[in-house]
Amino acid sequence: MDEIMRNRIFMKCPDISWDRTESDQAKGLPHPPLAKAQSGEVIELQEFESFGGRAEYSALLDSRRSERLYSDAPITQAELAFLLWSAQGAQKVIGVKGHASLRPAPSGGARHPFELYAAVRNVEGLMPGFYHYLPMEHVGEKKAAIELIRPIEDFPGLISEMLSGQSWAAKAAVVLFFSCVPYRAEWRYDKAAHRVMLIDLGHAGQNVMLSAAALGLGSCCIAAYDAAICDTALGLDGAEEYTVYAISAGVCKRGRS
Amino acid sequence: MDEIMRNRIFMKCPDISWDRTESDQAKGLPHPPLAKAQSGEVIELQEFESFGGRAEYSALLDSRRSERLYSDAPITQAELAFLLWSAQGAQKVIGVKGHASLRPAPSGGARHPFELYAAVRNVEGLMPGFYHYLPMEHVGEKKAAIELIRPIEDFPGLISEMLSGQSWAAKAAVVLFFSCVPYRAEWRYDKAAHRVMLIDLGHAGQNVMLSAAALGLGSCCIAAYDAAICDTALGLDGAEEYTVYAISAGVCKRGRS
Repeated sequence: MDEIMRNRIFMKCPDISWDRTESDQAKGLPHPPLAKAQSGEVIELQEFESFGGRAEYSALLDSRRSERLYSDAPITQAELAFLLWSAQGAQKVIGVKGHASLRPAPSGGARHPFELYAAVRNVEGLMPGFYHYLPMEHVGEKKAAIELIRPIEDFPGLISEMLSGQSWAAKAAVVLFFSCVPYRAEWRYDKAAHRVMLIDLGHAGQNVMLSAAALGLGSCCIAAYDAAICDTALGLDGAEEYTVYAISAGVCKRGRS
Repeated sequence: MDEIMRNRIFMKCPDISWDRTESDQAKGLPHPPLAKAQSGEVIELQEFESFGGRAEYSALLDSRRSERLYSDAPITQAELAFLLWSAQGAQKVIGVKGHASLRPAPSGGARHPFELYAAVRNVEGLMPGFYHYLPMEHVGEKKAAIELIRPIEDFPGLISEMLSGQSWAAKAAVVLFFSCVPYRAEWRYDKAAHRVMLIDLGHAGQNVMLSAAALGLGSCCIAAYDAAICDTALGLDGAEEYTVYAISAGVCKRGRS
């Protein structure tokens, strides 16, 4: 069978079993952590006081477009915080022994098997670098904390390499990278987990793009990236955690909308 | 290699080539239609005049939760129209010879390789049945048209079967079913198309769920379904077009929010 046909079948999932009696959860194995623990110093971002503006939803929905031309204007820490929270903020911890969390985008079984990283180029008061979002620091709050993974010296060069030569993205104020921690969903859904995770990524990504629009910023989702270069840059092992998606955001060349 | 590992690799796509020189587009083959042609009578839904209310975006984002308990109250045609448009409305046709379209949710290469169906249980003035959304009837307009595929006699029984026994969904006013027309994206991206299509489904789905919240309705995304039963019910061939996702929506049991 050729690769296109195999891929079509993965999308179609005709044989996926939703019987979860063989899952690690059903076997009584402990649930994986809801989020990766921080290892660096916790950096508190400014609160997003006005909670991303009071933009009207239907106008945003109609106006959002993929934007690839960015200016050199910075975004604020509160804006970055709102974008991070929109994708993966932890609103509540639920379930048996706290095995699940509620977040602004739905995820199958409330597994939320993603981690979120910000490649910061131009955010007020933050040095250029890779940062890791720490959603569990502020459960139920309109706040966000991050930790520095490492500074970035050649932002344009590295980001272009990570994104398979898409150098336009290296002019954004920030590029968010989503990673996947597959066991977090496999624990519950076993072989049925993976297809759902890709759909769930889109839920979270759409929130980021609408939130960028609510802030008057431009954004663009990016599916083409170099998996190995991204994993190395973000310090991921490429097996239990690996890069799956990216979104650029920043002030558009034509200014804030 | 076991199935979990194969699925993890599909998500990771370490070997996907973004070189499109071998794609059908690069070979100069004609682009596939932007949408499936209608075959039935065009039914014009009420315009969504107020465009889904004037809900504030950040409050919606914070309040949206998956809702599985629905009342017997109907939704209006304009509300159904807004949900359909949010997912797949055609705002503009672009590209060489009109090969792409812009819609409220981003899709890789603006391919939008989906069709959208509504299993209507309780929408004012529409008989229970499967309807097909016709986005190209109203490009750039705040209007929606559908066509009847066939009436549904036993809504609870059929919808439960389609959704692998999730009978709660059969109490929603409407269940939207997304299908995929894979060649629409393969034409441009070849083997790289499929992973991106799943993420793009999530973009469109999140719009539907936020729009439901904007209307004061509840919604829930549904990844577990019986592929063969869904394809048969919707009249899809299961090869060039097949079911990939579902979302229920309706008035919550506790009333409109």
